[in-house]
Order: sequence, then structure tokens, then C-alpha cells
Amino acid sequence: MLVVMAAHATPEQVAQVVQAIRAMNLSPHPMPGATRTAIGITGNINAVDPRTLEILPGVSELIRVTKPYKLASREMHEADTFVKLPRTTIGPGAFTLIAGPCSVENEAMILRTAEFLMERGVGLLRAGAFKPRSSPYSFQGMGLDGLKILEKARARTGIGIVTELMDTDNADAVEAAADVIQIGTRNMQNFSLLKRVALARKPVLLKRGMSATLEEWLMAAEYVMAGGNYQVILCERGVRTFSDHSRNTLDLSVIPPVKKLSHLPILVDPSHGTGKRDYVPPMALAALAAGADGLLLEIHPDPDHAQSDGAQSLDFAAFDRLLESLKRVSAPLGRVLN
Amino acid sequence: MLVVMAAHATPEQVAQVVQAIRAMNLSPHPMPGATRTAIGITGNINAVDPRTLEILPGVSELIRVTKPYKLASREMHEADTFVKLPRTTIGPGAFTLIAGPCSVENEAMILRTAEFLMERGVGLLRAGAFKPRSSPYSFQGMGLDGLKILEKARARTGIGIVTELMDTDNADAVEAAADVIQIGTRNMQNFSLLKRVALARKPVLLKRGMSATLEEWLMAAEYVMAGGNYQVILCERGVRTFSDHSRNTLDLSVIPPVKKLSHLPILVDPSHGTGKRDYVPPMALAALAAGADGLLLEIHPDPDHAQSDGAQSLDFAAFDRLLESLKRVSAPLGRVLN
Amino acid sequence: MLVVMAAHATPEQVAQVVQAIRAMNLSPHPMPGATRTAIGITGNINAVDPRTLEILPGVSELIRVTKPYKLASREMHEADTFVKLPRTTIGPGAFTLIAGPCSVENEAMILRTAEFLMERGVGLLRAGAFKPRSSPYSFQGMGLDGLKILEKARARTGIGIVTELMDTDNADAVEAAADVIQIGTRNMQNFSLLKRVALARKPVLLKRGMSATLEEWLMAAEYVMAGGNYQVILCERGVRTFSDHSRNTLDLSVIPPVKKLSHLPILVDPSHGTGKRDYVPPMALAALAAGADGLLLEIHPDPDHAQSDGAQSLDFAAFDRLLESLKRVSAPLGRVLN
Amino acid sequence: MLVVMAAHATPEQVAQVVQAIRAMNLSPHPMPGATRTAIGITGNINAVDPRTLEILPGVSELIRVTKPYKLASREMHEADTFVKLPRTTIGPGAFTLIAGPCSVENEAMILRTAEFLMERGVGLLRAGAFKPRSSPYSFQGMGLDGLKILEKARARTGIGIVTELMDTDNADAVEAAADVIQIGTRNMQNFSLLKRVALARKPVLLKRGMSATLEEWLMAAEYVMAGGNYQVILCERGVRTFSDHSRNTLDLSVIPPVKKLSHLPILVDPSHGTGKRDYVPPMALAALAAGADGLLLEIHPDPDHAQSDGAQSLDFAAFDRLLESLKRVSAPLGRVLN
Repeated sequence: MLVVMAAHATPEQVAQVVQAIRAMNLSPHPMPGATRTAIGITGNINAVDPRTLEILPGVSELIRVTKPYKLASREMHEADTFVKLPRTTIGPGAFTLIAGPCSVENEAMILRTAEFLMERGVGLLRAGAFKPRSSPYSFQGMGLDGLKILEKARARTGIGIVTELMDTDNADAVEAAADVIQIGTRNMQNFSLLKRVALARKPVLLKRGMSATLEEWLMAAEYVMAGGNYQVILCERGVRTFSDHSRNTLDLSVIPPVKKLSHLPILVDPSHGTGKRDYVPPMALAALAAGADGLLLEIHPDPDHAQSDGAQSLDFAAFDRLLESLKRVSAPLGRVLN
Repeated sequence: MLVVMAAHATPEQVAQVVQAIRAMNLSPHPMPGATRTAIGITGNINAVDPRTLEILPGVSELIRVTKPYKLASREMHEADTFVKLPRTTIGPGAFTLIAGPCSVENEAMILRTAEFLMERGVGLLRAGAFKPRSSPYSFQGMGLDGLKILEKARARTGIGIVTELMDTDNADAVEAAADVIQIGTRNMQNFSLLKRVALARKPVLLKRGMSATLEEWLMAAEYVMAGGNYQVILCERGVRTFSDHSRNTLDLSVIPPVKKLSHLPILVDPSHGTGKRDYVPPMALAALAAGADGLLLEIHPDPDHAQSDGAQSLDFAAFDRLLESLKRVSAPLGRVLN
Repeated sequence: MLVVMAAHATPEQVAQVVQAIRAMNLSPHPMPGATRTAIGITGNINAVDPRTLEILPGVSELIRVTKPYKLASREMHEADTFVKLPRTTIGPGAFTLIAGPCSVENEAMILRTAEFLMERGVGLLRAGAFKPRSSPYSFQGMGLDGLKILEKARARTGIGIVTELMDTDNADAVEAAADVIQIGTRNMQNFSLLKRVALARKPVLLKRGMSATLEEWLMAAEYVMAGGNYQVILCERGVRTFSDHSRNTLDLSVIPPVKKLSHLPILVDPSHGTGKRDYVPPMALAALAAGADGLLLEIHPDPDHAQSDGAQSLDFAAFDRLLESLKRVSAPLGRVLN
Repeated sequence: MLVVMAAHATPEQVAQVVQAIRAMNLSPHPMPGATRTAIGITGNINAVDPRTLEILPGVSELIRVTKPYKLASREMHEADTFVKLPRTTIGPGAFTLIAGPCSVENEAMILRTAEFLMERGVGLLRAGAFKPRSSPYSFQGMGLDGLKILEKARARTGIGIVTELMDTDNADAVEAAADVIQIGTRNMQNFSLLKRVALARKPVLLKRGMSATLEEWLMAAEYVMAGGNYQVILCERGVRTFSDHSRNTLDLSVIPPVKKLSHLPILVDPSHGTGKRDYVPPMALAALAAGADGLLLEIHPDPDHAQSDGAQSLDFAAFDRLLESLKRVSAPLGRVLN
């Protein structure tokens, strides 16, 4: 923490700030400069709310220095986190595909998709039984019946299940059905939900909030980790900006900073990121090249009749073509598709 | 809904889109133009997912025409909604103040604040017992003990209580303690929570999401209303933009469109909107002048020692000065403070 | 400037950064903390590019402390700047109206507007002879002929002229015709143009760039002031965000920080800020209440047939109604309309 | 264009809009729906300002259908544009590198960089003689002397020159020195400058504005093309969003829509896009994978002592490593580096 004094701050005002810092059991380090004094602060800053320093007379600005996340930070935990799943491991070196329809629509389509994926060596199926929809009048998912279908698909094909949890009420059911519990964009800062999945014995796929900074995202991961669940997978899915050429702005540029600041794996969801199936393959390849650890992809046996998100879903033939491209490009990048 | 065909679309492609629209039980209206054909669609569009039309050959773009909200819309309900509370009514003509500390810290400070407000004719106290904090290591609120303190303040002073609900687990307790249930910014699209407060018998104060469009915000209100609770109060509290001169960008310009498109009342929270107590009074006055129906304000008997948000809280003397200004300015605007 | 070292930085790396700072003729102030060391820097930071420190081994982050603007800063120049014009003065205490059509369309409409304004005591006319239009196929303004019409309006009515300069080629002509030279949003960082108006003997009205931070805006003002022209008037006109309920997001919340950080006057343009005439009056009143020093307003004798921006222009009757409201509200705020 | 009437609009109001459309010499197509009427418009919309329709009684919204750009549109010009330069051609199939320092600092460093690039088969050097700097106190470039150094580098090594033009005053000199004239981000909507380079006989590299939509960017290209210069190269360099993990948000997701909507080539500048040299290689690879036609890269013989942008410049060894990676990945993507 650094307190920047105004240029015209008096020595008395500087002294008052120094005293206030000491009263917080922190150590002040005044640095008189040519035009103003700055005061560095060391000590355990998390124990207090130092924003109140900002309003003392003569203070111009308060600048935070230390990042507030610990467990999610690479500084505290240098080695990469690998998330181990029944048939695959997510983390550096690999490039993991998770594919499937937006929502569970019926048993036939889920089984068909699971078999299709397993034939191609893709061991993780995504599909929502509970769907967050911006309209109360839209299809809200099959709920518990949908979870049963997913469990059946796993029992029959051996595929792993990635599915979303929307509230604590359904936490036990989703935890039982899922191999990975997905927390959606709109719930990234649903702290009650984060505290609940912190107690789960399944890994958590944490989508980035629509307008979350990297720090806020890692703090949401910190909630899960602080509660005891260290198996967190980040997932970039597009953020909200002024841009209107695609549904969201897929922020691939967050990948290198995530890798620098955190040890957690990061996936990319180019389906929600772009909102248009034609744009999915180039952005999927770009995610691989940028250093992501895998993809979350929407595919559908018959996208033109999907109950939701058909416009951004690949059909099976398009998925096969993308798979071929990913294989060709992953090799020179030293990555192994799984 | 309008389908815009590509300039080079063939007559066969136009015919195929026309047919696809009919297959959805909707009516197509082709309009051949100089460079391209557009096809208007009428009928009950909400029953289908027309985004799949977008991917038919020859289609350039799909443009939605009808707004998806109904109950929140002024077109469907022309008269202004007034939310009636024990001691006051929120809606046009009035200008309602809701004030109090960020969080319930202890009984003494809540009682002191409630008495202070009642003496000045301010009949609504805001204070959080459950606090959404971006860090798991920050003070998370007093919880149920905090609710008890709020109930005591009401019993002793008669003041109405506005307090936040963060999850369905505490819904009954918050509904019992509150006169108005607050849904926070980070939960604006927590649809499970919205469905729960739709069943509550108390009005809901719905804060705008950090990056919510006006349509998404009104759709969140629609969730509450579609479930049977028509007493919804909107609250603008700053959105996230590139701007860094204040904590958020308080979007007062949303007030006139809210008034045009919806019949619901709208309040403004200049404390969270700016994040700095010095900026609160001018933005509070601006909210009044822009046509808001009231304010949500953070005040604290001793802001410099507040457990949270002290930097943006007014002390009692500053609140008194603001109250004077608001009274002076509300008269020529034809508004009555309550 | 503050250099934050990584938690795992070695003493040698800290020493290397200290040495690099000294090599820049600056003074390092190391502050060893519990988890990491931070190094404060004092001295004349503007002479070097300290961003290169950021890439030394062991450095985690570089944090700038001092604001880069000097002449525009209130710290360096505490007294408010008042811009004196032939018939009025812009600055605190007053509330100055500048009104007129988007563009000069013909002599009759300009004269009519000038007379209308002078009758109401409004002494400044805005109208563009050179128009920045996003399409090359749109009306680009009357150019030099437009300037002649503006000069005629001034000669006949005595009204002051505010008009936009788009390039250095027309600088002499615009400087001669204008009482205030307007720099448009898209040219806020057209540094060649800023250097030219720095030499002008007329005040400069500097519109905020579409996505300019407050610092960038003040730095643009600094360009004009550093060249010798201290008569700069800022003008907020809406910034670009994700919001789509109005043409731009009018950022009234920038007014208090501008007043705190700078001594320059600030106007608000609610016409471009909202893009819709119905939204102009409430936002105009809000600008007054928020502490702006005046307004830039689009009015037109016949908005429905304007060559540009008709949808956001007030007609004369609507302007009269707004003027009445502004008068009523300015009094209790201690402001005098001019 | 589509006029959406309010649900409660009367038949007379619909008739009035129909008449207003006819008065503009356009054809109205009314479509009565269940809750409201929409009116399609066909005809030459560019000749009028239809925004005034928006304010007729009973009108709810005006929706534009046709894109305003023509020459830059793939609909009007289906074949990809290839920009032919002395030693290379920019366009699909190739992947063109343009590299060099932020600014011309002296003759030695430019010659050294040019020779280094030519040895590696990179035929285009970027370096600024005129520098747009946000502070008037920063190094503003060597100006005409810088251009002479660039011309010398071309004469001696045969390398092509890409350099920025900031104003019409220096247009002749830059046009003579450059093989490609760069228009910077801050000048993307400097329409006077665009009109000038429309007359140039050299290709124009048009950087995307800090907050430009794709449509605004293509409209800026349209300005150049409408003036007669069809050799336009687009360049994505990061846009401004709320994100703070990198200097700007590099928007790779714009590449597929650019390719769909326009025939112009598009490059990516990961140096300005990220602002940190460590992040440049992954984003450069991602740009290739996403379908960009090449890169604009900052490299410097001694980045730690660069006069500007050192923190985002690669040194020669890092550039060599990136070149190897790009070669390896371009082959499976069917692209040829040049």
C-alpha cells in the first residue's frame, strides 16, 4: 500500500497519516520527493480497511500494491496445478476438449453426442440440466431429469460430465452427477454458491464474469480454494465491451497474464465467446496458440433445431474438421490433445 | 424480427428462409429492396429460438424488433408503479431517501443511525447483515445476528428496513426482517434468487448488474414479476467501463430511458456509484434533477472507523448538509422529499 | 513511481533495480515488507521512460504515482480558471449556455437562431462549418462559406461564435471566425491539431475523446497549455461503453473529479451525450446539479428537417421550456445563468 | 431501415410515418403484427437522414438494416484484396511480418534493424519519425530527419518502409519516404487526414481506433477508398475496455468478422495490444491461428534503453525465437511467412 500526499500537504498532515498507519499496526515509510511525499506501508494489510486513509486531510491517493489473492497466486504456489479427472488431466502440456450441447434436451441426443465424442477420444461431455436464461419465458433446462440423463450417458459410455450448478439447493444433486461442477458467468461472484462448491469433492470450472477483471476472477477462485477445494479450472468465455461484431469479446489476451499470475489451468469457450458457429474454429485455434489448456465447445447433432444456442453450436462434421485442425497445430506447439 | 438477406442471396435462398419462418408457425413478409431483400416476421416469436435462421444460406443478419419484457414494460402497463411501504411510497412525485451504513456492525450504531434518520423524517434504513465481498478474507457481515439488530431498530424507532438477500438459504429470515429486500449487483442475474423473491410478500429493490444493459435489467425485473411479485424498485449504482476516475461509472443517463420504457420506480446509489464521499453530494443532486425517484445512501456515525465502505460513507453532518440541498432543489422540480 | 518486487525476488535482483534507478539519476527508496520488497522512486521521473524497469528480473509491477499533467492540475494552479469572452465569462458561479444547430445549413437559419438566442440572453452560438461525419457520403458541412455566415451572424447580432476546427489547413480561418475554437471528440488526441490551437489567441473548447480517461483528457489540455494557450474549456459529451440505451454514456460523474484535479471549467453536451431530444432536458438539469459550468446544446428552428442530428436537437419551444427549468433550479444552487 | 411502431400507436400515426417515408422518396412496407406494426423501408437510404423518423408520434424505434460501407464491403467486392509491395504481397495465404522499433532514434539502430530483418527474409521495417505521445513532454520523434534515416535504410538494404503520418502538413514527405503510410489509432477518425491519404499513391495501414466498432473502422477505410485509394490494410491493435491485465484488450475475435464482411487484409499488432513483451509471442501465434494476414511487431536492438515503448519491444534473440515458432505453426495452417 502506498499513500500519495498532495503537493501542498503540510508536514503536520504527513505526520497525521504516519500516525494513522501506526494505529493500524502497520509500518509507515515516508519518502519525501521533489513535489510531494509518498508514504509506503508494510505489514499485514488484509486485516484492516485502509481505504479510510484516503480521506485524511492532505492525502491525494491510495495505491494498493499487494495482490489480494494468495492461494490462487503463482507467487505462493509456483508449480502448475493439474486437475485430474477419471479419463484425462487438465493442465499444461495437454490440450483438453470438453464438448456437448448447450442443454440436455433428451436422452437420445445426449447418448448420441457422448458416443460420438468417446469415439474421437474426447472424454468430457458438457451439457446443462439447469440453464441460466436471461428471459423467464425461455426454456430453463430439464433440471433433475437432465442430471439423470447425464449420469446414464456416463454409465453407458464412460464419458466424464461437466455441468452447471446454479444454486445451493441443487448442489448435492449436481455434485453427485458431475465430474466437474461448472459455475457460470453470471454466478462468478455469487459468493454463497462459491462457498458451497468450496466444500465439494469435485473440481470446479469457474467461468469469468461478464465484466470481471483478472483480479476479481482470481479472487472468486480464492473463495473456492479458501474453503478447501483446490481443484479450480478457469474458463474465459468473452467479456462485455462496446464491440458489437460478436456476442461478447473473447479475451484471449487474458491467457498469458493468467499463466503468469496464477498456477491454475485455463480453458476457453469460443462458442459463447463469439456467438456464431462460423467464428468458433478460428478462435479455437487461436486459443490453443495463445496457450490455453483446452476448450469448452458447444456441439449439437442437429444445431438448426437446438432448443438453445443453436446458432453458436457446431454440428458433428464441423467438429471433426476442427478436431483435425487442432491436431495439426498442437504438434508444433508441443501440446497433446486429449 | 427481421431477416436481412445478403446482397447476393438467390431467390431460392429467400424462398428457403420464407419456408423456414412458416415452419416456425410465424408469418414472413418479404421486402425486396434495391440491393437486398429483407424479410419481416410477425407472430409469437417468443415460442421459438429464431437465432437458427441466422445460419441459413444467404442470410446476412437477424434483427430483433420486439422487446422481450412484458410485465416490466410501459407499453403493457402505462401507469407508473408506486411501491407502498409502511411510512412512505416510492414513485414519481416523491423523492425517497434510504440511508444507513454499508453493514450492520453492532446494535449501538444501528440504533443511533435509525434515530438520527427518523428525527429528520427519513423513514427507511439500509444496512447489510449479509455482505457480498470480493475477498473471502474480508468481513462477511453479522448474518442472522445482524437481522435481529435491524428488527430491533424497527421495533424501537418505527423505521423501515432495506437489507440484502444473498441466497435462498436465508430468504425466509431476510423476508421477515426486511420491509424491502435488496438484490445486489452481483446477483442481478442470479435467476434462482430472483425466482425466490418473486414469491416474497415484500417489495424487491433490484440493483443493476455491473455490466447489464437496460434490457437485461428489465428482464431481471421480469423474472420477479413473472413469479407474481409486482413491487420492484430499480436501483442504478454505477456500471463498469474503462473510466478510472471513480469506482464505477454512475450512469444517470439510464434514468430517462427507464422512465420511457418501464413503469417501475428507479433509485440511484451515488455511494457505490462514485466510491468517494466527496463525490456523493453532487451526484445525489444530479440524480434528483435527472428524474430519479430517490436515493440509496451510505451514511455512518463514524465513517473513518467503518468496517466496510467508510471511504464512501457520509457522516451525519455531511448528510444533514446534503439533505438541505436536496430540499432546496426538489421544490422547483416539483418533487417532495420523503 | 513505485517498483513492486516479486515475492521470490532475490536480494541481488533488488540491488540491480536499485542500481538501475540510480543510473536514471533518480533516488531509490527500498521498503522491505513481510512478503516482498517495494522500491519507491523520487526525482524527475518525466525525463526518463521508467517502463523499462518493469522488465528487470524479479520485478512484479511498476506503479506510477505522480500525475503527468502540470499546467492543467489544480495542485500547480489552485485558483479556478475563468474564460473571458466578449459577452460572458465561463467558470464557477455562472452557468453558461452555448446553443445552436449541429451544422451551418444556410444563412437564414443561423441568423434566426442567433436572434432567438440573443433575445433570451444567451450570448454564444454553436454551429459547425466543418463537420466530422463517420460516413464519407454524408453532408460534410459548408466549409468556408459556413464560416462567413457565422461571422455575419456575429456582426449582425453580437453573438459569440463557437465552431469546430478539424485540421490545421483551416486553422487561420476558424481562428478568425470563432470566439471559441472547438476541438471535437475524434480529435482529442490529434496532437498536431492541439499544437496548432496552442498558438491561437482564442479559447479552446476541448471535447472528451470517446474512450478517454480523465488523465488522457487533461493531458490533451496540457498540450494546448504547454504551447501557451491557457484558455481551455473542457466538455463532456458521453463516452463509449457497453450501454446501448442511449447513443453514448454521458459521464456526469466525471465532473466532481475534474473539479478536484483541475482548475479548468467544464461544460456538458447532453445532445451528443444522449442522442435523443427527449432525454436532453433531464440530463441538462442533472449537469447543472452535478456542478458543471454550463451546457453545449443542439437546437434547431426545424429539427425534423435538419441536415444532421435532428433527432437530438431541441426546437425553440422546447429550448424555452428547458431555459425556464434551468433558471428555477440554478437559483437554489447559487448559480447564475448566462 | 425498419421503423418499429409503439404497441399503442394509432392507425393515423402509422399512416403519418408511411407518408413521411414517401416524402423522402423511399418506399414504405407496413407489416401489422400481433402487438405492433413495423414498417420496412426500401430505396436509397443514404440520401436522407432517417433518424428524424424516430421522433414522429407513435414511433418506438428505428433500426438500420443496410451497412453504410460499400467499397470496403465484401458484398460489393467479393474477391480478397491483395496489397502489392516491392518485396512482398499482403493478403490471404501469406503471413506478412512488419517489424522494427517504436521510433527512429538514430541512424545506426535503424540500419542495424533493417539489416537484421533482411537477413531473416522480413522485407518491411516499421519505425515512427512522427510520434503521437499522450504527453507533450515526451519525445515526439525525429521528424523529417527520421524520414531521411528511413530512406537511407531502404536505399542501403532494399527493405520496405512502414511509417506513420500524423497530419496533412507532412503528408508529401511521408508519402515519399514510405512504402506503406500508417494511420494511427488516435487518427482513425481524423477525416481530413483520411481524405489526404485517399489521394496518396501508397497503400495505407489503418489502425483500429481505441473504441471503434467494426462498422466505424470499415467506414474509415471507406473514406480512403472513396477518395480513390483502394490499397487499405487494416490493423487491430487492442481496444479499450474495463480490463486492466494488459495495456489494451487485443481483440483477435474481430478477425473472422472482418474476413466475412470485408475483402481487405488485416494485420495484428500484439506489441501495442499487450504492452508487455512477454505477452507478445503467444498473442502473435494466436493472431496467425485466428486468420490474420500478418503482424506489426515492435523489436529493438536494445529494448531496455529504447526512447519509447521499450517494455513492449522484443530484442533480436526473442524475435528469432518467435520467428521459428511462427514458421512451425504456419505450415499446418497452410500459410507462407513473408
